[in-house]
Amino acid sequence: MIHRFNPTSYHNAIGSYEPVLRIGDGDTVITKTIDALGGDANDQKVWQRGNPMTGPFYIEGAQPGDALAVRLDKIAPNRRVGYTADVVAANVVDPHYVRELPKSKMVKWDVDAKAKTATITEKEYTLTVPLVPMIGCFGVAPDRGQAISTATSGPYGGNMDYNGWIAGVTAYFPVAAEGALFHIGDVHAVQGDGEIVGTGIEISADVQFTVRVLKKKAMEWPRGENRDFIWTVGNARPLDQCIQHATTEMMRWLQSDYKMSARHASTLLGQCVKYDMGNIFDPAFTMVCRLAKKWLG
Amino acid sequence: MIHRFNPTSYHNAIGSYEPVLRIGDGDTVITKTIDALGGDANDQKVWQRGNPMTGPFYIEGAQPGDALAVRLDKIAPNRRVGYTADVVAANVVDPHYVRELPKSKMVKWDVDAKAKTATITEKEYTLTVPLVPMIGCFGVAPDRGQAISTATSGPYGGNMDYNGWIAGVTAYFPVAAEGALFHIGDVHAVQGDGEIVGTGIEISADVQFTVRVLKKKAMEWPRGENRDFIWTVGNARPLDQCIQHATTEMMRWLQSDYKMSARHASTLLGQCVKYDMGNIFDPAFTMVCRLAKKWLG
Amino acid sequence: MIHRFNPTSYHNAIGSYEPVLRIGDGDTVITKTIDALGGDANDQKVWQRGNPMTGPFYIEGAQPGDALAVRLDKIAPNRRVGYTADVVAANVVDPHYVRELPKSKMVKWDVDAKAKTATITEKEYTLTVPLVPMIGCFGVAPDRGQAISTATSGPYGGNMDYNGWIAGVTAYFPVAAEGALFHIGDVHAVQGDGEIVGTGIEISADVQFTVRVLKKKAMEWPRGENRDFIWTVGNARPLDQCIQHATTEMMRWLQSDYKMSARHASTLLGQCVKYDMGNIFDPAFTMVCRLAKKWLG
Amino acid sequence: MIHRFNPTSYHNAIGSYEPVLRIGDGDTVITKTIDALGGDANDQKVWQRGNPMTGPFYIEGAQPGDALAVRLDKIAPNRRVGYTADVVAANVVDPHYVRELPKSKMVKWDVDAKAKTATITEKEYTLTVPLVPMIGCFGVAPDRGQAISTATSGPYGGNMDYNGWIAGVTAYFPVAAEGALFHIGDVHAVQGDGEIVGTGIEISADVQFTVRVLKKKAMEWPRGENRDFIWTVGNARPLDQCIQHATTEMMRWLQSDYKMSARHASTLLGQCVKYDMGNIFDPAFTMVCRLAKKWLG
Repeated sequence: MIHRFNPTSYHNAIGSYEPVLRIGDGDTVITKTIDALGGDANDQKVWQRGNPMTGPFYIEGAQPGDALAVRLDKIAPNRRVGYTADVVAANVVDPHYVRELPKSKMVKWDVDAKAKTATITEKEYTLTVPLVPMIGCFGVAPDRGQAISTATSGPYGGNMDYNGWIAGVTAYFPVAAEGALFHIGDVHAVQGDGEIVGTGIEISADVQFTVRVLKKKAMEWPRGENRDFIWTVGNARPLDQCIQHATTEMMRWLQSDYKMSARHASTLLGQCVKYDMGNIFDPAFTMVCRLAKKWLG
Repeated sequence: MIHRFNPTSYHNAIGSYEPVLRIGDGDTVITKTIDALGGDANDQKVWQRGNPMTGPFYIEGAQPGDALAVRLDKIAPNRRVGYTADVVAANVVDPHYVRELPKSKMVKWDVDAKAKTATITEKEYTLTVPLVPMIGCFGVAPDRGQAISTATSGPYGGNMDYNGWIAGVTAYFPVAAEGALFHIGDVHAVQGDGEIVGTGIEISADVQFTVRVLKKKAMEWPRGENRDFIWTVGNARPLDQCIQHATTEMMRWLQSDYKMSARHASTLLGQCVKYDMGNIFDPAFTMVCRLAKKWLG
Repeated sequence: MIHRFNPTSYHNAIGSYEPVLRIGDGDTVITKTIDALGGDANDQKVWQRGNPMTGPFYIEGAQPGDALAVRLDKIAPNRRVGYTADVVAANVVDPHYVRELPKSKMVKWDVDAKAKTATITEKEYTLTVPLVPMIGCFGVAPDRGQAISTATSGPYGGNMDYNGWIAGVTAYFPVAAEGALFHIGDVHAVQGDGEIVGTGIEISADVQFTVRVLKKKAMEWPRGENRDFIWTVGNARPLDQCIQHATTEMMRWLQSDYKMSARHASTLLGQCVKYDMGNIFDPAFTMVCRLAKKWLG
Repeated sequence: MIHRFNPTSYHNAIGSYEPVLRIGDGDTVITKTIDALGGDANDQKVWQRGNPMTGPFYIEGAQPGDALAVRLDKIAPNRRVGYTADVVAANVVDPHYVRELPKSKMVKWDVDAKAKTATITEKEYTLTVPLVPMIGCFGVAPDRGQAISTATSGPYGGNMDYNGWIAGVTAYFPVAAEGALFHIGDVHAVQGDGEIVGTGIEISADVQFTVRVLKKKAMEWPRGENRDFIWTVGNARPLDQCIQHATTEMMRWLQSDYKMSARHASTLLGQCVKYDMGNIFDPAFTMVCRLAKKWLG
């Protein structure tokens, strides 16, 4: 079943809020997201800044202990203007080098959906980059009835700012509240690894996604999948701990679903694993442990 | 000029040792490296374990303040047997998960240069991976007359275990001692990101490289280049600090050589940068900040 | 005014929950806390485990932008039995050493309020330590309407597990919600630095505290004070970031309230500062930056 | 036997250098150290900056696998002028706060040995602190024939900048080279925890120490002892790893020398351990795990 949902209010945290819509296992939702600053498709500020989320969506049948699969069917920026910060964040350079950097300001990009490019034209430089629209922040309600700021992330997902969350990908989240309570927002028209200026090209978007409930599918951290790869996500600080979470989750996945021994999984990962950086800017950083499906037999 | 050098002794540290050969700016060296465990092309142990280095090579004209460019012309494993550890390292998984892991042991691979594959055949699994031979450890003598174990790495290079140091690549090191004193060794037939089992496929190799002295070319961290990308390397702990070193070095490079302002360089990196993981196993970890040359005009 | 409040329900997160009591600026509350495992003064489990909080208390007049001062008047364990884990946590030892440790279990202590000691009597050892009762977890509702698990901590306070939060001390929290919404619980009869076994001696307690609202007193992190010292608290990961938060907060305090220049404050801290470890076990660690009042003129 | 040694040259690294003196097990050495900047008792620059070391001293009978005990008999600043930096280091504050700090400069202190105070008199402030002279940098030659900059530290000791290395204390180092090759220098007239301005009060000094060789006394990290406490030292980055090294070393010490089980040692440390910060400024940070001797029976 396909639902069309037009949001009029948002949340700046991910939590056990009143659902905006109840949907079934296998259903598809067509909706809209506003940008990280609260701006809508007309670039009008309609909500307070800080990654306002569309949702939450209640998925019938989802219980703690299940996993929620979310296939990202479409992520389409729906206006011409996007915003980025224009100086690398203080925490991604050597501490003494911070003094050599100017203060960051917000700059505008022209986002051309037809040409599939974004262009910035400043006095001193211009730059055109290809669009790769992605979801910056999405996830399900965390456990203990928590409501956690969309500035950060955790086992429930959240503000991972990973440029691999693009259309065609399926994300998996560990369900911790009845109905899962799925939130989505913070689309970036494009973003480099690490989100090192503190933003991607922040933009509003039309999004479509399809959910599936995987009963009694235990997982501790978000997972992802596309045609060629599977991956696991660690959200924490420092990056070292992200790696620990993501690698442990991948080891568990290979052992439980692919029936590998610890030695087999280790040997495979040791020589074939890829790591991607989500973000090194938010309160919790994000690293991804990724493996080609060709190794999974 | 081409030099053929057949090593008979090695160093387990990188430092201001007596040069084994003096070569000129622009010269090429054809030599051999033994494996991380001290084994030669006949898999005979000829030196104590711990990344024994071939060298150092004294490059005429190289002075502190210069950079040494080293083009990796050839990295060819020269025997059939390679070795890896077979359990992920304790520091790359969640601390409490360590108890669930067996103890690592060394396992053998059959390295087939003609088929360009390596195959492991254990009782419980087999695995065949394509060869991508790389240099695990290389660099120049550090400053202050230091001699630093080849277990670790720093501004001078060292045990970076980055799977991007393959044939065709040019590496750049900041010269800190007269003659640069270049060391090379620790070839891996292949290695996943992070070297998370603590080894690549450790193997002896025939290597060929060509050096160039870049006078008064200040840099603080190793850099690299291939046809499509430039990159900078940060060697430190935790990974966050590697990122700080590598990103600062890239910002400096873009400003000094490509005449970008800090805002221009930031905006470009913010939306286009890639980060690769060298290793998250050695005493110093390695992260790489990489940018496509197409962005450099 | 003195309020006596006998709790019957608790929260396992700190957030903008319905207040259990409204009190005035300057009021004192006499109440009880249950232990981290949910056990009351009779060692009966009355709530689910995970640092259940007494409260929240709504303080009249407290607004975002103010600070809440909480003087800890009394922290008195109110039963004989306390609990600790008995093996150091996996994350506080070298990763490879984890394999040499047995699995932790909960052990009982006899807490003797009259003798002011706690004694453990195991088959292989006995140990008697002096009581220094402290608050493991307390704080005010965080911003954005968040509700955050009492497993962790942040700018709003939370599970800091700092053994300096003892009777006689005044704590200061940055108010982020109307009425501040103060929570308190998780008393430890005693605890070493770092909470390295993952617990102090967990116990229920009679507690008394007195609140004061400091209007328009901006602060970013919790602060504390006793007769001889002032301190600031950083809650984050890794410990390095705790130090950054706590030191920045102290620099700001010395500049704003004690009218020191940055050079004066730096020189004073540089030669006279003390750092204490709260915990290195919880999701967010805690470090304290402490300065003797004698230096404040 | 007592040796008087007047140094005329120094080393800016700790390594297997030619010994300046051979001494016996149990011998005492009376010597001098110059300051971190290379200045002697007349405040004349006699060596290049960067913690120049007096030594190395070869101790007869010390072999790899032994430990070297060094009792610090006397640490007496031998001139009136001392130097500190005057702004907190960029890495100990929040990254974005760095922009609010002025650039550090060196400032002078008047060190009065008779009054046991040091006084700084700047235009905007004056400050007098009591002297607690300490050794900033000392240790033995590292393994593999390494020579490692006195900017940093490791298992062999080095630039720990721990303000607990004062007269009366005995330090223990794991011997890794024949004769141990002990180096000493970098005295601070006083220093706060963490060395957060990047210096203590840097000064030249008269020092006296007495060595003892402990045969086949395996240890992995430096240890220390005074009348009331024993401690272990972890030198690494980030602070979390320092804690891991120091805590593991303490667990091993309690098990091997005090015959505690892992549960006994854990329970004791869990409720009674203290952690001190050496430095959070040098390339390797330092944390100390400290336990009162009263707990050792």
